[in-house]
Amino acid sequence: MTKQYQAQIYVTLRPSVLDPAGTAVQAGLKHMGYDSVISVRIGKYVEVRLTAQDVADASQKIDQICDQLLANPVIENYRFELEELTTPVNIRS
Amino acid sequence: MTKQYQAQIYVTLRPSVLDPAGTAVQAGLKHMGYDSVISVRIGKYVEVRLTAQDVADASQKIDQICDQLLANPVIENYRFELEELTTPVNIRS
Repeated sequence: MTKQYQAQIYVTLRPSVLDPAGTAVQAGLKHMGYDSVISVRIGKYVEVRLTAQDVADASQKIDQICDQLLANPVIENYRFELEELTTPVNIRS
Repeated sequence: MTKQYQAQIYVTLRPSVLDPAGTAVQAGLKHMGYDSVISVRIGKYVEVRLTAQDVADASQKIDQICDQLLANPVIENYRFELEELTTPVNIRS
């Protein structure tokens, strides 16, 4: 029987890659008076729900999805956490 | 003495708000053969480094920054985790 999993995926720019959006946010914060901010880096956060045989199967699928679509491995890193959903979830709630 | 903190901030659309970007990614994944994907929701992940007196001060600043700039409270939720940076970090590394 297949199970439902939720993956929380974090995609971040590699540390050596410049982040113009983060720099813009930092400048905006400084303009608003937040002088204590040292740096801002902006990434993506993606929640994916999927069915899989087990956690290893889910993990493999999420790895493939990240490599092929969600992250650009040349400039981005990703990591994710998986949790099994015990009750079916209404995705429109 | 002020300390350095890093906040990991997650900004997500409220569950009742439609996510066209997530729907587009889901359609793309289906087109690529990932039929097991049930839903995709896309949010933002922001890392902010700042100086603060203590963790309560840092937490308050991050709350204000999220409310005023990073999140739109009408359609988005946010949550964050704070950690103290024990050694000064080269932000360009």
